[in-house]
Amino acid sequence: MPTSYDVARLAGVSQATVSRALSGGSVSAQTRKKILDAAKAVGYVPNMGARAMKTGRVNTIGVVVADLRNPFYPEILDALTCYLDAAGQKVTLWNSDGPGNDAALEAINAGSVDGVIFTTVTEASAPLRAALRRHSPVVLINRTVEGLGCDQVSSDNVAGGRAVADYLLENDHQRIAFIGGPSTASTARDRFLGFSQRLADAGAPLPSERVLEGPFTHDFGFSATTRLLTADHPPTAVFCSNDLIAFGALDAARAERAVVPDDLWIVGYDDIAMSAWPAFDLTTVHQPSGTMAEAGAQALLDRIASPTAPYRTLTFRSHLVVRGSTAGTAPSTP
Amino acid sequence: MPTSYDVARLAGVSQATVSRALSGGSVSAQTRKKILDAAKAVGYVPNMGARAMKTGRVNTIGVVVADLRNPFYPEILDALTCYLDAAGQKVTLWNSDGPGNDAALEAINAGSVDGVIFTTVTEASAPLRAALRRHSPVVLINRTVEGLGCDQVSSDNVAGGRAVADYLLENDHQRIAFIGGPSTASTARDRFLGFSQRLADAGAPLPSERVLEGPFTHDFGFSATTRLLTADHPPTAVFCSNDLIAFGALDAARAERAVVPDDLWIVGYDDIAMSAWPAFDLTTVHQPSGTMAEAGAQALLDRIASPTAPYRTLTFRSHLVVRGSTAGTAPSTP
Repeated sequence: MPTSYDVARLAGVSQATVSRALSGGSVSAQTRKKILDAAKAVGYVPNMGARAMKTGRVNTIGVVVADLRNPFYPEILDALTCYLDAAGQKVTLWNSDGPGNDAALEAINAGSVDGVIFTTVTEASAPLRAALRRHSPVVLINRTVEGLGCDQVSSDNVAGGRAVADYLLENDHQRIAFIGGPSTASTARDRFLGFSQRLADAGAPLPSERVLEGPFTHDFGFSATTRLLTADHPPTAVFCSNDLIAFGALDAARAERAVVPDDLWIVGYDDIAMSAWPAFDLTTVHQPSGTMAEAGAQALLDRIASPTAPYRTLTFRSHLVVRGSTAGTAPSTP
Repeated sequence: MPTSYDVARLAGVSQATVSRALSGGSVSAQTRKKILDAAKAVGYVPNMGARAMKTGRVNTIGVVVADLRNPFYPEILDALTCYLDAAGQKVTLWNSDGPGNDAALEAINAGSVDGVIFTTVTEASAPLRAALRRHSPVVLINRTVEGLGCDQVSSDNVAGGRAVADYLLENDHQRIAFIGGPSTASTARDRFLGFSQRLADAGAPLPSERVLEGPFTHDFGFSATTRLLTADHPPTAVFCSNDLIAFGALDAARAERAVVPDDLWIVGYDDIAMSAWPAFDLTTVHQPSGTMAEAGAQALLDRIASPTAPYRTLTFRSHLVVRGSTAGTAPSTP
């Protein structure tokens, strides 16, 4: 039976490096690949049971997703699984549309995962707070909870909302609307905050009848936009707080015979891959979702290695991508 | 510390039923729910380690997905995770765009999963054949491998392709094209088989210059359709072997100023949720993806309980859903 020493010999590294690489420790991507290739070539199967006894780790990471029908989450999950695979970690998946959140936290206690990545936390539940008091390794990506004692990775949603406001103001829009996701989600709140504050600062506050809040879905985008377009004084521009809502808005505009962008500008958020398809050609705020996922995965591996290190909050930049659903050039402010 | 007897008392069932339900055995959905609710209420955490020793099971199912950017797979994954959650099973996820297939089979050997569900197998690899010789619990869903000794769940892709041919023939199309996925995928092969045979039987065989094969992507649908529309005698109808290819075809038609459906009919396959959005309004063959996923999950739980039972092949019916990307009424044959 091949051993980690056989792997080390073939990969041309020390056994300690093999051990570190296969337990998710810090080695370069190149070295990790060399080691994984060598392990495969010699047919080495790490003895997880023995290792778990020695390190107390099972080399398994829990991931909690929700709303897999929004392509944003499969994009995150794709990046997470590839990154964790390459780091020699297994992934246990929970769907929080079921009873996923608490189950994931219980799995840390039960020792069946080493830590958990949450992608859609909306509040600091009692089980989550209890887990953090026990220094359970937990990382939040995408959505965040202010003041929570754990590592958090997101993009700058306030700045993203602000950039959209600047863009619409510079292009002289007077009647502007906002279609937002649920205010329980930090992403929806922050995008609205940056957007509405900048408009208010410019002396053009959003009137309440042009602010609609609902789920992050195509259906809601469709119904909200229909409502806006059939009211007196319909808006000339609408900012949707994710791309799915914006796709619904585009469909509603077509149904109401409002020409995009001549009669109505539509802006989304996320820049999921299909936003660039000609069918949508959507102006939207780009989040580096793959990079965020990888940073979150690495943050969790770091946290497992150093349970009491200071918490980190990583906030990636976002930027506006101008396409055919609006007619103005890119804003002068970044 | 609460025990399974406390759960049984609250749920009003026997301890044996609780034990069976929590190890993924056969109980009614209603009873399972009652037991899970009771377990939650009394704070019962099954002792997985002790149980694994007793039953040799870890109540964890491996799932191998690929191509998460095709919304068809997140739909399957969503249904799988919800079903397995409700059955008290954890899900370990592999992405076969990484080294997922072999890793999943090794995990059965290592005892870290009880069985594996594959969603995108394209061939019977040597490790897969070896696993089946050892009676490792493996189920294939969506894509199948003929003659392979394992449970397989799919929909009738041959009949689906045939139904599209009937529909186009009944509506007098003369110049018909096919844009297919990779012939390594059973789904792509079977859809082509049913479609092309029926056309040939009707005396209107597909000419080779109107059969294009490539990946199951929007990009390929776009480039293939552009090629078809810019050739002499462009087709009046194109059957795309999944919805993503058809979305690319719709975008290409728009770019080439071919009006859908006046100049060109476009038909897809899968009926993913967004096919019904007005932006696409796509005529397509509906597969019951959620039902297929649930049947596959249950087939694996049954297989784990009865490793040597006869293999089952479950083939669900599919049906054509007519929308705005074609102009004919539904076909008279089912």
